[in-house]
Amino acid sequence: MCSTSAVLTTSLDAARTVAVREVPEPTVQRPTDAVVRVTATCICGSDLHSYRGAGAGLPLLMGHEFLGVVTDVGSAVTTVAPGDLVVPHFAVVDGTCPSCRRGFPGSCARLSFYGLPDAEGVPTVGGQSERVRVPLADGTLVRVGDRPADVTDGDLLALSDVMGTGHHAAVSAGVGPGSTVVVVGDGAVGLSAVLAARRLGAERVVVLSRHPDRAALARQLGATDVVAERGREGVAAVRELLGRDGADAVCECVGSQDAVDTAVALTRPGGAVGFVGAPQAVLPFRRLFMRNVRAGGGVAPVRAYLPELLDAVLAGGLRPGRVFDRELPLAEAAEGYRAMDAREAVKVLLRP
Amino acid sequence: MCSTSAVLTTSLDAARTVAVREVPEPTVQRPTDAVVRVTATCICGSDLHSYRGAGAGLPLLMGHEFLGVVTDVGSAVTTVAPGDLVVPHFAVVDGTCPSCRRGFPGSCARLSFYGLPDAEGVPTVGGQSERVRVPLADGTLVRVGDRPADVTDGDLLALSDVMGTGHHAAVSAGVGPGSTVVVVGDGAVGLSAVLAARRLGAERVVVLSRHPDRAALARQLGATDVVAERGREGVAAVRELLGRDGADAVCECVGSQDAVDTAVALTRPGGAVGFVGAPQAVLPFRRLFMRNVRAGGGVAPVRAYLPELLDAVLAGGLRPGRVFDRELPLAEAAEGYRAMDAREAVKVLLRP
Repeated sequence: MCSTSAVLTTSLDAARTVAVREVPEPTVQRPTDAVVRVTATCICGSDLHSYRGAGAGLPLLMGHEFLGVVTDVGSAVTTVAPGDLVVPHFAVVDGTCPSCRRGFPGSCARLSFYGLPDAEGVPTVGGQSERVRVPLADGTLVRVGDRPADVTDGDLLALSDVMGTGHHAAVSAGVGPGSTVVVVGDGAVGLSAVLAARRLGAERVVVLSRHPDRAALARQLGATDVVAERGREGVAAVRELLGRDGADAVCECVGSQDAVDTAVALTRPGGAVGFVGAPQAVLPFRRLFMRNVRAGGGVAPVRAYLPELLDAVLAGGLRPGRVFDRELPLAEAAEGYRAMDAREAVKVLLRP
Repeated sequence: MCSTSAVLTTSLDAARTVAVREVPEPTVQRPTDAVVRVTATCICGSDLHSYRGAGAGLPLLMGHEFLGVVTDVGSAVTTVAPGDLVVPHFAVVDGTCPSCRRGFPGSCARLSFYGLPDAEGVPTVGGQSERVRVPLADGTLVRVGDRPADVTDGDLLALSDVMGTGHHAAVSAGVGPGSTVVVVGDGAVGLSAVLAARRLGAERVVVLSRHPDRAALARQLGATDVVAERGREGVAAVRELLGRDGADAVCECVGSQDAVDTAVALTRPGGAVGFVGAPQAVLPFRRLFMRNVRAGGGVAPVRAYLPELLDAVLAGGLRPGRVFDRELPLAEAAEGYRAMDAREAVKVLLRP
C-alpha cells in the first residue's frame, strides 16, 4: 500500500498574492537526487521582483535559500547522507562541468532553479517549503559538519545565497587589506557586502542608507560611516568623507540606474565596481573608460565561495545571520513578503 | 639682438587636409619645461579620428607620440638634461598627484595634451614637429640611457603610446602565464596587444584579421592563430578553435559596437575584456553580468608602464617598432595620413 503524504510549499499566485499550500511530498526521482527536510528558509530581494511585477509563468513556486537535513539520497550520491545538516546552493549545479570547475557555477552546463523543472525536465518545488528535492546533490549541497553552539540557523542559511552574493560584490570590487569601500544598497546583500568587505580587510566602509534602522545595523556589521544623501549630494558627501576622488572599491548591490551611476561616480580612477544587483541599467562605458574604472561581478558564484565562507562561520566568527531581522512560521510567508515589500523588514526568516 | 628661428609642425586644417608649416621655435617658458628635438614621430589611430571627422577647434596641431633629444631644460627640471635621449609620454603629466602616484596618469590633476595649451594655459605644439616644448618634464619624459645597437628608433618611439596601450589591453584583460587570449583589432594597438600578451605568458593568442598583410605581421609578433570571419561567424570560429566557451582574456582594440559585442561574446564565463579602443559603443551590461565577465581598461596609463616596457626593450628583447611598416619625412605627413586612412599602412613613422 502506498501512503502519500503532503508538505507545505509557497506559491506566488498573482502580483502581491502569496499562498502556502500542500503539495505531494518530494521524493528521490533520480540517482543523483537528495531530499532535504527544510529547517529554515527565507525571502530574497529577487523574490520581491517577482512579487511586485509578477509576469508570465504563474503560479510560481518560490524560494531558493534554505537550510535543512538530508532525509533521503539517490544511489549515486556520495558527499551527503541522511541525517546530514546541509547548506544548499541557491541553484542546482553539477560541480563538474568546465564552468563549475573554473569557479563559475552560475554558468553550469546543467544549471536549474528550485521551483522549476531541473535539467532533465523533472519538476522541483521552491525552497520555501517543508521538504525539497535537490537534483545533482553532490554538486549543490554542502555538508555542515560540527556546528558550534553559537552558530545560528540564520548564519548557515545566509550562506546559501545572500552572504556569498555580498562577498562576490566585495571580491569583484577588488577589496583587500586597507581598502576604502563604498557599499551602495542597505538591503541584506549590501549589509552582507559590509561584512565581506571588513572580513577581507577593508579599512573604511561607507554605506549609503537613509533608513536609521538599517544604518544602525550596518554599523553593527562593521560600516565605519553612513551617508544619507542620494545622487549628486551623496557623491559629494562621500568624496568629502574620504578626502579624495572616490573609493578604491564600490559594491553595487541594487541594480537600478541611479545606483549604478552613483557607484561609478564614487570609484576613484583605477578603482573597481563590483556589481551584484540584477542590472536594470546602462553602464556608463565612456565614464568607466576615461577613469580606468573596472567593472566586475554578476550572478554570484556562491557555490564556489561556500566552503570558504562556511569555514569562516564555523571557525572564524563570521555571523551573517545578523541580516535577518524578523522570523515567521512558513505558513505566514505572505506576511513576510508584505513586510519586506514595505521595507518594514530587511530580510525575513521563515520557519517550517 | 634676438634671432627667432622656425621649426616645422603638422596641422590639421580641415577634414583630410594636413599641412606641415613653420612655427616659431619652441623654447623653455616655465622652470619645469624641457625642449625636445624630435628624432622620430608617428601617426596614431586616434589622429585618424580627427582627420576623418574633424570638428571644432581647427586648425589642430597634431601628434602625441615622439622620440627625441633634450636641447634645453628649465631650472626646476631634475631628471633629464640636454643631450639625453628621451621617450615622452603621450600626454603631459606631473607624476606627483594622487592619480599619478597610484599609477593612473590619465587622471593626472595637471593633465594636458601636445598641441593644446598646458595646465597653465601656455600653448604647445603637437608631437609631429621638429621641436616640442614639454611642460612638466620630470613627470612626462623618461630618459633612455644606454641603447643597444639593435634597438631602433621605432622600438623606443612605440613606448610613448601604442605599445603601452596594447600592454594595457592585455593587463586589463588579466592575461597571465598560460592564458588563452583573443585580440579584436589588427591595427597597431592590436598588434602591440599581441606582443604584450605573449610577453605576459599567453599560451594562445588569436587575432581577428581579414588583411593578409596584417595577419602575417600578427603571426610574426607571436599570434598563434588568425580568424578572418567577423560577427557571429567569427565568434563561432574562435570558439571552435579554442574548443570551449571563449577565451580567458580578450583585448578590445577598436571601440566600435561590433568590436565590443564580439569581444564580450568571445570571453568565457569568469573571464575579462580589456578595453582600449575609444568607446563609441554601449557595453552589454546584462550579458557581462550573466556570465561574470569583467570589463577593464580605458585610457592607458602608459607613463606608469614606461619604465618596465623600456627595460623590456633595452634588455628583454621586446621589439615594438615592428608595428611601423612605412617611414616618411615629416614634410610628407599628409601622405602618411592618407596611407593610414586608406589602410595601406598599419602605422607610419615620420622623420623630421
